[in-house]
Amino acid sequence: MTELEQLPYSSADKGWLRYEKRQDAPCLSRIVRHSSASGEAVESAVRELRYAILQMTGDEPELTTTANLSDTAHRPYIQLAMVSAEDLPEALQTKELSQQLGEEGFALRSLPQEEGESVYIIGKTEKGLLYGTFHLLRLLQSEGQTLTQLDVIENPRNPLRMMNHWDNMDGSIERGYAGRSIFFKDNQFVQNDGRIRDYARMMASIGINGISINNVNVHKVETKLITSEFLPDVAKVAGIFRAYGIKLFLSVNYASPIQLGGLETADPLDERVGAWWKTKTEEIYKVIPDFGGFVVKADSEHRPGPFTYGRTHADGSNMLAEALEPYGGIVIWRCFVYNCLQDWRDRTTDRARAAYDHFKPLDGQFKDNVILQIKNGPMDFQVREGVSPLLGAMPNTNQILEFQITQEYTGQQRHLCYLIPQWKEILDFDTYAKGAKSEIKKVVSGELYPYSHSGISAVINVGDDDNWTGHTLAQANLYGYGRLTWNPDLSEQQITSEWIHQTFGNDPDVVEHVSSMLAASWGIYESYTSPLGVGWMVNPEHHYGPNVDGYEYSVWGTYHFADCDGIGVNRTVKNGTGYTGQYFPENAERYESLVTCPDKLLLFFHHVPYTHKLHSGSTVIQHIYDTHFAGVEGVENLIQQWSSLEGKIDAKRYAGVMARLEHQHKHAKEWRDIINTYFYRKSGIADEQNRTIY
Amino acid sequence: MTELEQLPYSSADKGWLRYEKRQDAPCLSRIVRHSSASGEAVESAVRELRYAILQMTGDEPELTTTANLSDTAHRPYIQLAMVSAEDLPEALQTKELSQQLGEEGFALRSLPQEEGESVYIIGKTEKGLLYGTFHLLRLLQSEGQTLTQLDVIENPRNPLRMMNHWDNMDGSIERGYAGRSIFFKDNQFVQNDGRIRDYARMMASIGINGISINNVNVHKVETKLITSEFLPDVAKVAGIFRAYGIKLFLSVNYASPIQLGGLETADPLDERVGAWWKTKTEEIYKVIPDFGGFVVKADSEHRPGPFTYGRTHADGSNMLAEALEPYGGIVIWRCFVYNCLQDWRDRTTDRARAAYDHFKPLDGQFKDNVILQIKNGPMDFQVREGVSPLLGAMPNTNQILEFQITQEYTGQQRHLCYLIPQWKEILDFDTYAKGAKSEIKKVVSGELYPYSHSGISAVINVGDDDNWTGHTLAQANLYGYGRLTWNPDLSEQQITSEWIHQTFGNDPDVVEHVSSMLAASWGIYESYTSPLGVGWMVNPEHHYGPNVDGYEYSVWGTYHFADCDGIGVNRTVKNGTGYTGQYFPENAERYESLVTCPDKLLLFFHHVPYTHKLHSGSTVIQHIYDTHFAGVEGVENLIQQWSSLEGKIDAKRYAGVMARLEHQHKHAKEWRDIINTYFYRKSGIADEQNRTIY
Repeated sequence: MTELEQLPYSSADKGWLRYEKRQDAPCLSRIVRHSSASGEAVESAVRELRYAILQMTGDEPELTTTANLSDTAHRPYIQLAMVSAEDLPEALQTKELSQQLGEEGFALRSLPQEEGESVYIIGKTEKGLLYGTFHLLRLLQSEGQTLTQLDVIENPRNPLRMMNHWDNMDGSIERGYAGRSIFFKDNQFVQNDGRIRDYARMMASIGINGISINNVNVHKVETKLITSEFLPDVAKVAGIFRAYGIKLFLSVNYASPIQLGGLETADPLDERVGAWWKTKTEEIYKVIPDFGGFVVKADSEHRPGPFTYGRTHADGSNMLAEALEPYGGIVIWRCFVYNCLQDWRDRTTDRARAAYDHFKPLDGQFKDNVILQIKNGPMDFQVREGVSPLLGAMPNTNQILEFQITQEYTGQQRHLCYLIPQWKEILDFDTYAKGAKSEIKKVVSGELYPYSHSGISAVINVGDDDNWTGHTLAQANLYGYGRLTWNPDLSEQQITSEWIHQTFGNDPDVVEHVSSMLAASWGIYESYTSPLGVGWMVNPEHHYGPNVDGYEYSVWGTYHFADCDGIGVNRTVKNGTGYTGQYFPENAERYESLVTCPDKLLLFFHHVPYTHKLHSGSTVIQHIYDTHFAGVEGVENLIQQWSSLEGKIDAKRYAGVMARLEHQHKHAKEWRDIINTYFYRKSGIADEQNRTIY
Repeated sequence: MTELEQLPYSSADKGWLRYEKRQDAPCLSRIVRHSSASGEAVESAVRELRYAILQMTGDEPELTTTANLSDTAHRPYIQLAMVSAEDLPEALQTKELSQQLGEEGFALRSLPQEEGESVYIIGKTEKGLLYGTFHLLRLLQSEGQTLTQLDVIENPRNPLRMMNHWDNMDGSIERGYAGRSIFFKDNQFVQNDGRIRDYARMMASIGINGISINNVNVHKVETKLITSEFLPDVAKVAGIFRAYGIKLFLSVNYASPIQLGGLETADPLDERVGAWWKTKTEEIYKVIPDFGGFVVKADSEHRPGPFTYGRTHADGSNMLAEALEPYGGIVIWRCFVYNCLQDWRDRTTDRARAAYDHFKPLDGQFKDNVILQIKNGPMDFQVREGVSPLLGAMPNTNQILEFQITQEYTGQQRHLCYLIPQWKEILDFDTYAKGAKSEIKKVVSGELYPYSHSGISAVINVGDDDNWTGHTLAQANLYGYGRLTWNPDLSEQQITSEWIHQTFGNDPDVVEHVSSMLAASWGIYESYTSPLGVGWMVNPEHHYGPNVDGYEYSVWGTYHFADCDGIGVNRTVKNGTGYTGQYFPENAERYESLVTCPDKLLLFFHHVPYTHKLHSGSTVIQHIYDTHFAGVEGVENLIQQWSSLEGKIDAKRYAGVMARLEHQHKHAKEWRDIINTYFYRKSGIADEQNRTIY
């Protein structure tokens, strides 16, 4: 039992790996590990399986191998086996199955036994078996699931399914809202790695296969992560993740050759610089043979980069890629490059254009092991903005999409904001890059263009808070992100339902109300914050709370241009910044015209009078008032729904969420009143319903 | 020479104690120290005198005593003597002189000698001799000054002439813009006290007689300044200042009995609390027998205070005063008490009312050794606001006026803003407390009511920057503050001229242009920042740079209420917050009426339409545009004047000031454009002159 008692490894909240005891748990008394199924990840799978079955059924399953199987062959079992194994039952030795399974895929197949149904978890690799195991456990926790006639084959749609931590070694987390780092403290790695191990389990359970553990803004101490001072610690953490099928990456400082190497330059075309990185990379791979590669934020927001030396981003990333190539490592190069010293008076410069303007002309110039990481929108993770036109615009350059799970601009995990609906909209967005049905999800999965590397990445919302994410319901964003990266066609309802069942059990009231709360939350948050896609209107720096002019006269390129007549950013080709022209024609035309531009993005693309009539029939100003009043009512409804669950959810989690909802309510009123007052004072147009505006 | 080589004690800029060599220096070859003139302060005076004469003439004066005087009695000398001394020449032994000299006063009298004029510095105390010495040195540096027929008697008008440091022991300075603390570093006192010694000389030279060395917001480490851990260091610093006639005060934490004493309360009416403070005070006076007393910020901006226990500020301060009474110590109790968690929606609460509402009802309830410290305005050191109506409103309670030399809201020593004109206006403000001619200067000097303690205090603008104040020209505020506290009737021109002559010499171009720059600077700064007395419109927290709505929807009680029609705070009795009613009738009526309210304070007292016509003939909106354009032109004029002085001022100071002026120019344009754009966008009213507004 000792081994199982180690699960979970920390005293933190178990998230969705609770495996609560249930009456209807199928009989699962034996786990048979096939001789073909070996390796660290299989060990992890078997351990999780035994622990989960013990939790769910109260009995520890017998663990055996095929060699010992014959005597009790009539009793049901779970068997883990490689698809290639010759001793699989004939029914499972099909060429079809073998062809259908990708490197990370799995099959779940049930076979009737005398005493009940048995299940095979079949994979082509260790990782397949690990993912299959977690999938089986997920099914076992869904309502009324039996193991009869199980016939599942899954392969992940995205090759790379990444988590980006923005953790600093002092323990702080840039844009973190759930406590301190689980990796670092006081400029050292943490001693007790229980949290990291549990985190690795959670990540593996949702199919994550890559992780960068340090902030993309690489400061002084963190620059030394690639030196002998810290590499042994990095290797240790890499080992923890390796056992769960996850590759470790590091964010690196582009100026490392200067800061660590004593060179006077970091020019990518300087031979000494390339040589320095080659030696450094060799050193890293000596201690971490499966090291993932480098994540790089260069020439962005005052970070160093190739621009300093008059080189392109292709020059800069290819140099690093060359160093990584012999080991199969990759460079993940962020495209968040723009002028962050803009003059607010200048209406011709448009930050939204920047990534496309910088990178599109370089298409085809990047090495095969470089991936460009592109934020979902052209601005910065706003509650609503256009989809980045760079996604799909580079047929000959690997792309990876970047989401933000941490709720920087979406309520900082004090407000409830379920992001799965937002991400679904983005993934389903049709770029028309190769005609209709060229959705973002096909771009980043590598289905549209033959990318050698691609996928989805996201900034994590996890810290050392007991419940990992600050707001317990924000765990759903973490969970859903992983599930979507595995399969972007999963429906919101499916993901929500999975998460609730695993996290809160099967009580129908809980399922109904939590589903409904999550489903409504993004819309509610959007409604009381910045209207109609215009974005920003937050307090500078920390980005929490309303401040309509907070970024209006700043250097950041983030403006709304509200005056007494109207509001919005004219990004048209006709007489604006020309940003709409970066989209493929179908979208360009749709956004260019006031007739076809969707209401929700109206102010992102157009400057219109407050009296402009929306497709909804309302005017812009009345829409602002109405949505802001409705938003607060929406929060009241969230509170009402949550209240109805008192007693059906354990007291700690119930109270924790309720406290956040109450803060959200108070803060939503602050948003409502400040936004409404700002626009009433500015426009002088009264609310049609005469509600209180100050 | 060794002793003189110690002057100055640090390598910092010499400020106005340069004593530059001049051709026209009178012959001053001997200093005669009268036997009656002894003590530490006299030592300081003589040392300064010898050093200064050496600097100005190139020759070290002979130092002698009256005993050795006879043999060379025909040669001119400077003689330091007490007014009581029996061996003074008969001409100086007048009853009149003795009566005219106060405890800190001095007389300067010249007597003809065979080889030239001699001068007597006469005082009633050591401090009088010290001040007389510095005054003589000041005269010697003014243009064309001879020592013939010198007949000066001066007594300081304000009994207390205080400097308040907001220094923290980690070395930071709250609202400091000239480097780090000269007292503290890394939670210790500095080791090398050269800067402190030079600072004491500078303060003595302008008549300062009290100093509190730590921040009124007393944090954790600073709370321990009154414990044995730090008292020896405090005593050492007190000793440095004592030699220059300056008493040392400490800001104390009202919750000290809890944090240091282990009590569970700081209730001023709890006997244990009073006893704790008595023991503590005894401990302090044991090591600093002339300790000045405590400066206290209580119940303000989250600082602890008597309110916590349902006690009044009188209860709170009297308890401390009782502990200090046996030693002659005083309590300086700040009146900066207001609701800093105000709801911006609430237009009835008015922060401007707070100090008066809190303290006026307590008049007469304070002990004789309590002084209420009252900021010059009811808000917070804005570039323009009304004068605090509490000043003069408490006939039976000691008052001390608080100015802010550090330029928190007036350009943070990166913008030139000479504050003497502002302070003059305030000091000359007629409260009508006892009919006409009841000016603020008479209130705080103790001339209007028979206060046992009163005077002027100010938040210092000094740090460890080489030039003390960041902006070299900001030294003029420091200098002028001291001179005004000594004599509030000194004219701005007189003070400016003194400072320039001592700081930059007698070049007429320098005198003319620096005078003109200083004289214009407050008006220039006001013109491009917040208009017509409305205040604020700065970035929150650090308070630098324009942000019209920065404090509009905040908890701080600092609003402008601008909408598309108009702007300003209605503080009238008729239909506003009633604040105007806190003034004595003559001022109340003047501010209450739009007909008589001065333009400069219009928006401080009234909410008016943008089209409201000012007494100047301009509308409010056109005034905003005009002053903001003019303000930037004003800065250009400052630059032009300063440029004309290149070569006439040493290169280091010339370049330092020029760099700041250039920053000011750039930043003034930012102010101009943001303020103008904000109001143009909000009002929709175009500039009559069609200048560029964005």
